[in-house]
Amino acid sequence: MHEFELIAAIRRRCCDLPANGFEGIGDDCAVLPLAGGEALVFTCDALGEGVHFLRAATPPEELGSKALAVNLSDVASMGVRPVATLLALSLPDGLEAGWAERFIDGYTALAERCGVALIGGDTTRSLDGIVLSITAIGRGPQSQLKRRRDARPGDTIFVSDRLGASAAGLRDILDGRIDTPLAAIHRNPLPEIEAGEWLGKRSEVHAMMDLSDGIASDLRHILEASEVGAEVEVEAVPVAEGATLRDALCGGEDYKLLFTADGAAADGLARDFGAAFGRPLYPIGRITDSGLVWLRNSQPTDETWQGFRHF
Amino acid sequence: MHEFELIAAIRRRCCDLPANGFEGIGDDCAVLPLAGGEALVFTCDALGEGVHFLRAATPPEELGSKALAVNLSDVASMGVRPVATLLALSLPDGLEAGWAERFIDGYTALAERCGVALIGGDTTRSLDGIVLSITAIGRGPQSQLKRRRDARPGDTIFVSDRLGASAAGLRDILDGRIDTPLAAIHRNPLPEIEAGEWLGKRSEVHAMMDLSDGIASDLRHILEASEVGAEVEVEAVPVAEGATLRDALCGGEDYKLLFTADGAAADGLARDFGAAFGRPLYPIGRITDSGLVWLRNSQPTDETWQGFRHF
Repeated sequence: MHEFELIAAIRRRCCDLPANGFEGIGDDCAVLPLAGGEALVFTCDALGEGVHFLRAATPPEELGSKALAVNLSDVASMGVRPVATLLALSLPDGLEAGWAERFIDGYTALAERCGVALIGGDTTRSLDGIVLSITAIGRGPQSQLKRRRDARPGDTIFVSDRLGASAAGLRDILDGRIDTPLAAIHRNPLPEIEAGEWLGKRSEVHAMMDLSDGIASDLRHILEASEVGAEVEVEAVPVAEGATLRDALCGGEDYKLLFTADGAAADGLARDFGAAFGRPLYPIGRITDSGLVWLRNSQPTDETWQGFRHF
Repeated sequence: MHEFELIAAIRRRCCDLPANGFEGIGDDCAVLPLAGGEALVFTCDALGEGVHFLRAATPPEELGSKALAVNLSDVASMGVRPVATLLALSLPDGLEAGWAERFIDGYTALAERCGVALIGGDTTRSLDGIVLSITAIGRGPQSQLKRRRDARPGDTIFVSDRLGASAAGLRDILDGRIDTPLAAIHRNPLPEIEAGEWLGKRSEVHAMMDLSDGIASDLRHILEASEVGAEVEVEAVPVAEGATLRDALCGGEDYKLLFTADGAAADGLARDFGAAFGRPLYPIGRITDSGLVWLRNSQPTDETWQGFRHF
C-alpha cells in the first residue's frame, strides 16, 4: 500500500472522531489554539533503518541529530518555534555497545543548540532494525501560523536555500562514498528554525511547508490544500553545488522551507531576509489559478517532475 | 542494556536542556501548565511485534485498540481526560492485505468511544516487525493532576480493579490458547478514563500511576519518586479470576490504576467510588516512611516480588 493511500485511509476514519479544539490533519503540524492568542502545534515523524538511513553508514550521533532535525523542521515550517519533543526508540537485539548513548548524545546536542526540551518518550525492543519516532511540539502566536492552504494566485513561490544536496549525498552513500561533503549534508540536516520563525512573523508570507520529499512532491501539497496552481521556472530552482536539477526538484530530505508570499511584497521580503540572514531567498515561480506547469525561459514545457516516494 | 538504564541515561542528558515551561520526565506524562489554571499532559509509548504482541495471535483491530488504550491509560493515571493522539506506524514489507486498515479501524473505534481526536502521525516501512508509537495528549485543571511523587506516610494504597488477568491471558496465548477469556482481556485492555478523571477531582488522592508492569515494579516508582516506603498486605491484593497472585503482583499490562489516598479519608473515598462506578476500590496496604515490606496477616515476610521487565 502506498504511503499516501494509507494516510488517506487514516484521514477518512478520523472524520468521525471529535476534534477537541484541535485543527485536523493536513499541515506539517496539527494546531491547538489556546487562550490569549497563543497556539501549540504538534507533529510526529518516524525514521526506519533501511528506509530513511543505513546503520553502517550512519554514526549514531548523526542519526540522533537528524531524527530530531526532521521534526523540528516540521514545526519551523508552521512559522513558530519548537519547544519540546517526545522520543520513542525501538532497538533490535545485538546493537553495538554504546549505540543508544551515542544516539542520545547527538539528539540532545541538537536539542540544546535549538533550545528544545525532551519531555518524555519510550524505549522498546524491535525484531530487526532501528525504528525511531519523534513527536515535536511548537508554541507561538496564532497570528504567526503558516499553513499549506493559504497560497493565493499571484503569490511568488520561494525556497529558503539551495536544494538537492541531501539527495546527492544519499547517492554518494549508496555508492559507498560515505565521507563526502554531500554525504555529510545528507546525514546532518539543520532545521530552518530561525528562518521559519522570522517568516512566521511576516504577514505577506501565505502558505509554507518544509521540503522533505522534493519540490515536485511538496509543492503539490500546497497546491492541493490551497486549490490553486503554479508555474515553476525550472532554471530558477537553486541547485546546491554537486547536486543535479533532478536532485533539487525530486530529491528528498533537504529540510529547507518552501513558501508563497504576496507577489507585490516579494522583493521587499527577500531584501529583508537577506539583511537578517546574510543569504538570499530564491523565487522559483508563482501561484496560478490551477494546474502545475514547469517553465523554461518563461515558456511552458511538457516536463513532468515527481517527488520522492517512501514506499 | 536494560530499559531503565537507558531511560536513566536519557534523563541525565536531558538536564542540560531548557524546560520551556514543561515539567520534566518522571511521571506517566509530562505536564505543561497553561494560563487560567489549565494544563496539558503528554505521554509516548511504543509497542513492538515480538515484544508487546505476537502478530499471529493478534487481530489488527485488537492491536490498534490496545496500542491506543495503553497510552490513554497513562493520561488517565494523571487524573485528566485524554483529548488527542498522534500515531507513528512502521510496517514491514509483506504484511497481509488490509492489515493497516484493520489496525486503524480498531484504533479509531476506541478513540471514538473515548472521545479522543487523532491529530497527526506518520507511516513508514520497517525492516522486520510492526512497530507502533503513540503520543497521547490530555487536558484538564492543574488542580486535578496526580503525580508519582505525592504519596505520604499514612496514605492508604489502592488499586482500582482486580489484577493479573492480562498476565494470565498472555500465558494462555504463549501456550497456544489464543481464544480464552483471559487472552481476550490481555488483548483488549480498557483504559480507566472515567475512574482516572474522577480520582483526579478528589483532593484526598495523592499519588497515582497506571499498572503497566505489575504492582511489584510500579509501586516502587511511586515510593522512589515520593521518597517513602510501603507495607503491602499480599493477601489483600485482588486477584482476577483465573489469575495467580504472582500474575497480580508481577504481571504486566493490567492498565488499572494504582494510587494512594489520605488514610483518614480512604473509607469515604472507597464508598463514593463504589456509588459512582458500581464496583469497589481495593485497599492493599499503606505508605510508610521507608522500605517496601510484603505482609501476610499483618506480619512482615521475607518475600521479594519483582515486576515485569521489558528487556
